Amino acid sequence: MVGRFANAISTQSRSVICNGIVTTVAVSETKELSLYVQACSALAVIERNLIEAGTAKARILTAMVYISDINNKPEFNSAWDNWVDRSNPPLRACFGATLEGDDLIEIVVTAKV
Amino acid sequence: MVGRFANAISTQSRSVICNGIVTTVAVSETKELSLYVQACSALAVIERNLIEAGTAKARILTAMVYISDINNKPEFNSAWDNWVDRSNPPLRACFGATLEGDDLIEIVVTAKV
Amino acid sequence: MVGRFANAISTQSRSVICNGIVTTVAVSETKELSLYVQACSALAVIERNLIEAGTAKARILTAMVYISDINNKPEFNSAWDNWVDRSNPPLRACFGATLEGDDLIEIVVTAKV
Repeated sequence: MVGRFANAISTQSRSVICNGIVTTVAVSETKELSLYVQACSALAVIERNLIEAGTAKARILTAMVYISDINNKPEFNSAWDNWVDRSNPPLRACFGATLEGDDLIEIVVTAKV
Repeated sequence: MVGRFANAISTQSRSVICNGIVTTVAVSETKELSLYVQACSALAVIERNLIEAGTAKARILTAMVYISDINNKPEFNSAWDNWVDRSNPPLRACFGATLEGDDLIEIVVTAKV
Repeated sequence: MVGRFANAISTQSRSVICNGIVTTVAVSETKELSLYVQACSALAVIERNLIEAGTAKARILTAMVYISDINNKPEFNSAWDNWVDRSNPPLRACFGATLEGDDLIEIVVTAKV
């Protein structure tokens, strides 16, 4: 069975669950042009999505992080280090990629439900 | 057990199956320089690969989409919206990345078999 | 249950295991400015991580490869073709992305444990 969380008339889901693992994606809700601010917002959305799916950040397996300017990675690291459950460190990879509009970050996370 | 679909002398598979989930990858078969055209072709290859693996687009879990020019994302969105099973919206993320040769899009999909 | 492999005071893991599948990530240990050299090093780290997690390159499912200059992809292909278990070809995708510092390559692999 596959579980999906999507808005009413969307052609995509923010989260899908299969085999007891959820995959979820988030961008920042604010488009303020600070990576640190956008990273905090995107991580908060991830956490909200995980709770909605019945899990929590302590159960994250992997985080794939795409930022628009790799030179600002230290700002993302600060947001991450404040946010992450240090007893359960996820696998993480961070890449520079071009993103839509004023998005400075997009995060794809998998977690055990 | 792991299932693999590969060409005879290749060092990579177009699809792998494990734990009842297939991962498959596609680029466009035409190298016409239109993202819309290439997106339709790449999605058709994804669908063919899913059928070969014993599943269908209604069972897609996630789609990671890499396009060479993020400013053309609306063209990809059009192709996606026409193609996707709206009753079963996948998780989707779309990034700008550089791709090989004349490829304008590459798509990695997971689906329940 | 989730298995994690991390350094003592890290906020991220180099490998995580769940449902009998490990995900692992590597960059090159040498920062020599040759993609071929860095690719060989990163693949060796992947192999070491897989062994640490109780598996092997013959059991790789997927490899997502990010390189800083897509025009050098043939150098990565050479390193890959020498390294891969040709009896068990993984699904593979390779993208151009910006990476941190002098990293020319970063690889994320999943494998059956």
